[in-house]
Amino acid sequence: MLKVAVVLCGCGRADGSEIHESVSVLIHLHRCGLPYRCFAPDEPQTEVVNHVTGQPVAEVRNQMVEAARIARGDISPLASLRVEDYAAVVFPGGFGAAKNLCSFAKDGADCRVHPDVARILKGFHAHGKPIALACIAPVLAAKVLGVAGGGPGCELTLGSGEGVADAVAKMGAVHVPRPVTQAVVDRANKVLSTPAYMCDAGPYEVFTGIGAMIDALKAMLHAGTPATAGAR
Amino acid sequence: MLKVAVVLCGCGRADGSEIHESVSVLIHLHRCGLPYRCFAPDEPQTEVVNHVTGQPVAEVRNQMVEAARIARGDISPLASLRVEDYAAVVFPGGFGAAKNLCSFAKDGADCRVHPDVARILKGFHAHGKPIALACIAPVLAAKVLGVAGGGPGCELTLGSGEGVADAVAKMGAVHVPRPVTQAVVDRANKVLSTPAYMCDAGPYEVFTGIGAMIDALKAMLHAGTPATAGAR
Repeated sequence: MLKVAVVLCGCGRADGSEIHESVSVLIHLHRCGLPYRCFAPDEPQTEVVNHVTGQPVAEVRNQMVEAARIARGDISPLASLRVEDYAAVVFPGGFGAAKNLCSFAKDGADCRVHPDVARILKGFHAHGKPIALACIAPVLAAKVLGVAGGGPGCELTLGSGEGVADAVAKMGAVHVPRPVTQAVVDRANKVLSTPAYMCDAGPYEVFTGIGAMIDALKAMLHAGTPATAGAR
Repeated sequence: MLKVAVVLCGCGRADGSEIHESVSVLIHLHRCGLPYRCFAPDEPQTEVVNHVTGQPVAEVRNQMVEAARIARGDISPLASLRVEDYAAVVFPGGFGAAKNLCSFAKDGADCRVHPDVARILKGFHAHGKPIALACIAPVLAAKVLGVAGGGPGCELTLGSGEGVADAVAKMGAVHVPRPVTQAVVDRANKVLSTPAYMCDAGPYEVFTGIGAMIDALKAMLHAGTPATAGAR
């Protein structure tokens, strides 16, 4: 059974997982016949943002408890995610990916990555298992698998790359510009990405791009060949 | 411009708007070229539920502020929704529809309906403008437009109807069983409905059923003919 892990980190674009992207991932996995399980850090969000005003508020919310709203209650602590139990892992975007899963929103290329996220990305990559990331989440792969981190460096997209392509290069990865409805597939590293709301887009365009990414993930899983270095 | 109003009431299946259903509505409206605006009551949720444990917690959250997570910040108070400004209105489901927008979860057929929701349903119906509802939300139309409420009574679906068909009949509406991937279209009353998570289903099935409902809504809007009583 080709089961896929989906890593969330709250519920909302400004302080957690972007909701349209997360739901689009779940819909397309279901459409592709790929069963999934959601995970999130069982710890507080970096902040809580009022999504009407865009301003932080003095509240504490747990990433897993909030992400359970997207997962309809079926969710586990990120610490319990074992690489051997899953065929692939997907990271939707949202500011939470750059605030809770790493510190990219604050520190850019010098960001720290959540230890479980680093362990999971290194583990899936080492075992030749695909990693799919949407929106700002590809910075996680750039940081953990980039040349600066000792890895091979991977190709990924953050849309036009405006304002972020330099940071991606600094982390040792290769930014590939791509429109919202398409995905970048790095076959050597088995890293897949789509710009989603990094572009000024509407929900059906984001849904379409995530569909392209999940279709490519399904094809990669069914091909079932191990990663071949250099065969980009 | 055929603009559509979407009525939310929080963010999460257990205490607000069901997230997969709400996002599916927005994706399909965008796909169909129908611009939309989201609304929610600017008032506290009836309760706040921890979506991991399923238990209520001692917290206060505002329906509009939470629904803004789904709407990505673009949302207005439900009280400001004027029937004359929109061509149609859509209500996604989730327990919030039966806890915040009416008291059906507690009172069944004897439920009270939020005054703005009653005003909006009566207004769209009186002006021959379509009303689309998913999951448990069709009980709102059953109560407000049902024969018991003085209206013509409308045809709608809540899936198999198990456990709710009696209440629908008591409110003066007609329950039509339907699978998750399909919609019921009452052409006389311009009321559209789809079972969504009233069925034991996965996200792609829910997405498909909501797609069928929004396709029918688009066709109805583009036909542009006024409601014809008895032409069901």
